[in-house]
Amino acid sequence: MQSTFRSVAIVGKYMDAIALQQMQSDLTHLARHLLSQGLQVFVEDQTAQFISHEGFQLASLNDIGSKVDLVIVMGGDGTMLSVGRALRHTGVPLIGINRGRLGFLTDLRTDQMLVEIDKILQGEYQLESRMLLQSVVTRAGKPIEQTFALNDVVIKSAFRLIELEVHVDGQFVSRQRSDGLILTTPTGTTAYALSAGGPIMHPDLDAISIVPISPHTLSYRPITVPAGSVIEVIVVHAADAQISYDGQGLYPLAVGDHVRIERAQQEIQLVHPQDYCYFDMLRNKLNWG
Amino acid sequence: MQSTFRSVAIVGKYMDAIALQQMQSDLTHLARHLLSQGLQVFVEDQTAQFISHEGFQLASLNDIGSKVDLVIVMGGDGTMLSVGRALRHTGVPLIGINRGRLGFLTDLRTDQMLVEIDKILQGEYQLESRMLLQSVVTRAGKPIEQTFALNDVVIKSAFRLIELEVHVDGQFVSRQRSDGLILTTPTGTTAYALSAGGPIMHPDLDAISIVPISPHTLSYRPITVPAGSVIEVIVVHAADAQISYDGQGLYPLAVGDHVRIERAQQEIQLVHPQDYCYFDMLRNKLNWG
Amino acid sequence: MQSTFRSVAIVGKYMDAIALQQMQSDLTHLARHLLSQGLQVFVEDQTAQFISHEGFQLASLNDIGSKVDLVIVMGGDGTMLSVGRALRHTGVPLIGINRGRLGFLTDLRTDQMLVEIDKILQGEYQLESRMLLQSVVTRAGKPIEQTFALNDVVIKSAFRLIELEVHVDGQFVSRQRSDGLILTTPTGTTAYALSAGGPIMHPDLDAISIVPISPHTLSYRPITVPAGSVIEVIVVHAADAQISYDGQGLYPLAVGDHVRIERAQQEIQLVHPQDYCYFDMLRNKLNWG
Amino acid sequence: MQSTFRSVAIVGKYMDAIALQQMQSDLTHLARHLLSQGLQVFVEDQTAQFISHEGFQLASLNDIGSKVDLVIVMGGDGTMLSVGRALRHTGVPLIGINRGRLGFLTDLRTDQMLVEIDKILQGEYQLESRMLLQSVVTRAGKPIEQTFALNDVVIKSAFRLIELEVHVDGQFVSRQRSDGLILTTPTGTTAYALSAGGPIMHPDLDAISIVPISPHTLSYRPITVPAGSVIEVIVVHAADAQISYDGQGLYPLAVGDHVRIERAQQEIQLVHPQDYCYFDMLRNKLNWG
Repeated sequence: MQSTFRSVAIVGKYMDAIALQQMQSDLTHLARHLLSQGLQVFVEDQTAQFISHEGFQLASLNDIGSKVDLVIVMGGDGTMLSVGRALRHTGVPLIGINRGRLGFLTDLRTDQMLVEIDKILQGEYQLESRMLLQSVVTRAGKPIEQTFALNDVVIKSAFRLIELEVHVDGQFVSRQRSDGLILTTPTGTTAYALSAGGPIMHPDLDAISIVPISPHTLSYRPITVPAGSVIEVIVVHAADAQISYDGQGLYPLAVGDHVRIERAQQEIQLVHPQDYCYFDMLRNKLNWG
Repeated sequence: MQSTFRSVAIVGKYMDAIALQQMQSDLTHLARHLLSQGLQVFVEDQTAQFISHEGFQLASLNDIGSKVDLVIVMGGDGTMLSVGRALRHTGVPLIGINRGRLGFLTDLRTDQMLVEIDKILQGEYQLESRMLLQSVVTRAGKPIEQTFALNDVVIKSAFRLIELEVHVDGQFVSRQRSDGLILTTPTGTTAYALSAGGPIMHPDLDAISIVPISPHTLSYRPITVPAGSVIEVIVVHAADAQISYDGQGLYPLAVGDHVRIERAQQEIQLVHPQDYCYFDMLRNKLNWG
Repeated sequence: MQSTFRSVAIVGKYMDAIALQQMQSDLTHLARHLLSQGLQVFVEDQTAQFISHEGFQLASLNDIGSKVDLVIVMGGDGTMLSVGRALRHTGVPLIGINRGRLGFLTDLRTDQMLVEIDKILQGEYQLESRMLLQSVVTRAGKPIEQTFALNDVVIKSAFRLIELEVHVDGQFVSRQRSDGLILTTPTGTTAYALSAGGPIMHPDLDAISIVPISPHTLSYRPITVPAGSVIEVIVVHAADAQISYDGQGLYPLAVGDHVRIERAQQEIQLVHPQDYCYFDMLRNKLNWG
Repeated sequence: MQSTFRSVAIVGKYMDAIALQQMQSDLTHLARHLLSQGLQVFVEDQTAQFISHEGFQLASLNDIGSKVDLVIVMGGDGTMLSVGRALRHTGVPLIGINRGRLGFLTDLRTDQMLVEIDKILQGEYQLESRMLLQSVVTRAGKPIEQTFALNDVVIKSAFRLIELEVHVDGQFVSRQRSDGLILTTPTGTTAYALSAGGPIMHPDLDAISIVPISPHTLSYRPITVPAGSVIEVIVVHAADAQISYDGQGLYPLAVGDHVRIERAQQEIQLVHPQDYCYFDMLRNKLNWG
């Protein structure tokens, strides 16, 4: 077999030793299999503690992207988000293997992983780019926090009400009271934004959706703008406001803080099986029909 | 004054003699004013019957676009839709004047129309393109109906339930029972689609939204796809199914009919006042804050 | 065995010969079993043609309720609605057996029906009352149509828009444009009203919900009123307006028609298995968790 | 004039010295007017500091209800909620006067207050009861917190996700992940619950609505149950969970905490002007038509 990928990384469920222990056997099988195919194999530092095999090299999550042609993530959608963001500077593609049910971002199941991975190594795959958001918080004129998100940036108050002012490309959009606001990529539209009443956006769409959470004014509805837009959100009034990205990081915001959200320069590359179809995944995950 | 437009057309409320009678005085003022500026003025045939002035030329709605540089519509959003579709081959821009409240598409009010029109004639305006949808119905392999829409194409049953199968770019999306389906341009997202729970899309977004009307499956939600997508809808099961465009035309559909919806090649050009802002209009029309 | 029920009726899927043919074997098993238990068995006229057994008596759907202690319906929720309305004068309870998946109103599956029916005959059951709506259409001061509904009364236009004025207990509620209006009992809240965004109401609640379908004004939301309320709906403006009950009957409405909807004096009695729980049914039907 | 009320209390905006200062003139006018009518007048301690007149007596908010026949609240809906809860043991009715726009609970405007109050004092009014919720939090088998709410009890996590298990009258309803859950009286359905997608319930309806906030499962919808139901919510999984009542109090919850919500024995009495109509208020507040 002549693989299109010569070096491959394995990253297990992010920062979760209990989960890693449970997937020890799967991790070991995967590592052994990849090595047996003559590939150079890197394993993320923490993950490596749960692989009972030799022959691979170690790397930190931050470094691993620059060492390999493909990153295989063993974990759920949450781990895909973490690893995706960590790889954003490298351009290296990733694919996810999930135990149990498939995710919105994890295409493979552990019980079929070796067969599926082999097909991918043989070049039978699709490559897809997913946009990221970049968010900068400015307080009193000084940038104090910069974050990236593959799904969404969420600005909300711990316990309602928050009042936010929104501008798009310098144009005033609204000043509204709500539980908060979700700024979402197409990828994020099947996550929190969907629960909050937002639309599903196909990942090929170059767009950002602004989704209010339980808005006070009932006619204040999700608005989708071109991905090239610069969205600015000002915290007008709030108690315990916070900003989070991909539901993972969480930073306190103060009244007067100014958050600038726009498309990041980098994108994430996803590897999908050859027969992957976005709508099949959607139908399956949302129990349509 | 040196106008950027040398010939201008006036079109009154579409096919509505009562409304035209009510706007007789405004139509006459407008025509007289445009003629006094030395412009060549065309008036749509039916509208002309309600103008008590001389010096303009007559033209049918179908021909009028090819004779002028600018079409001024006196009527509401509905008339803008009709006239817009009629002008789609010509590329000539249009602007709307509404009595009473402004519309989503009509930027000017009659009480300020002369001042505002003068500014536009002097070149103080914005030009904006709006995409159209093209829809072809095929029955038993033969195309039987082709329509265009500036807002939306709606497929629904007179009285529920209709079962529709949706494909996007040849990929199966869903087979669902509902009251029907709205395929909407960004322009149409503030019309019927909004009532049905769809998202608002900024007109600069190149996208089509697929919005189910009262879907049987609660997780079947609006999906937005790139404007370049080809959407195919098959009528699987229905009684008294119909297709309509912009809420204006209405054609019966039969079980087995296949509707292909995609972006039309032509676009509509809208003229806006220099200080027009989409979000201001939205805030005003939707009573935000 | 000493049954609490001495005479039982069997009614098959309403007005559907093809379905009746498919359930021929189940119908025959059921009839034979009930006769073998020493019960007096009545079978609805059309259903009887599909039972290959002797010893039962015939009755029309309208008469059957007055002859028996229990009506067993073999069919889906739609048949339960039809039969329920037909039994409303008699007070006789009914229970439904469905092929395949359980319904919102059909508690038993054919593959377990004999065991379950025996338990019920032995007195292991719950009895539950469900309210009905009564609807009277008045045109030019004269009542022209009276109907009953177990689920809902729906007033809508074949193709939007309809403008309806609503009064509750003589108080003006709203004049609104929409696709139509659903007036629903608690039973009906899991049917059409749910698709249109209405709340779920527990059947023990004495209430009627007024649910707008795709209302033009986004803040026009479902309103729930006490079951004792008199709701009046006036058709202000419409093309091809219709009123339907339980999604089954359909009558044309004209502009100016006045529809009075209130709780009917009669109620429907449902028999449930001893271990029936409304919330279990809901969780199962709506795929919760 | 022979008033039906002999002693009246005045309570200004709750715990808000700045607002009280702004309404100083209105408070003074009101007190002077009531005294001039020969009524016994009590003023809440803090409010009294902003009344430049003599002749009234002081009372704390907790005591004031037991001393008078009518409590006049000068403040918004939030103050009505606070004062209403404080009066729940006394049965004394209250009426609200709001500066600027009317509220959902405040019927009078300051600019017409004296005329309107006189009518009420002369017996031209409606009396309406509003139900309260009582909520008890139990931790490790011991009740640790008891609260009352006129609008709603809200259980949510500071930053999603919270997993809650719901039981009604001992029956398991659901175990769901969401942003939280609102348990609302009819009065509360026009407050937070409305923003979260809940139905409007007429105040005469004896019901409690269970409204999920941004539920993970899209088919998990608001459920309305009879007011006599006992609702139990168990915190299965959460970070920083909290319970709040009427958006005013806030207590931390721990995983495993058990919250029992049911109708309180006491009710609040509201005084409305003779021509008050709930639907008029609704139409006005929600900008219908």
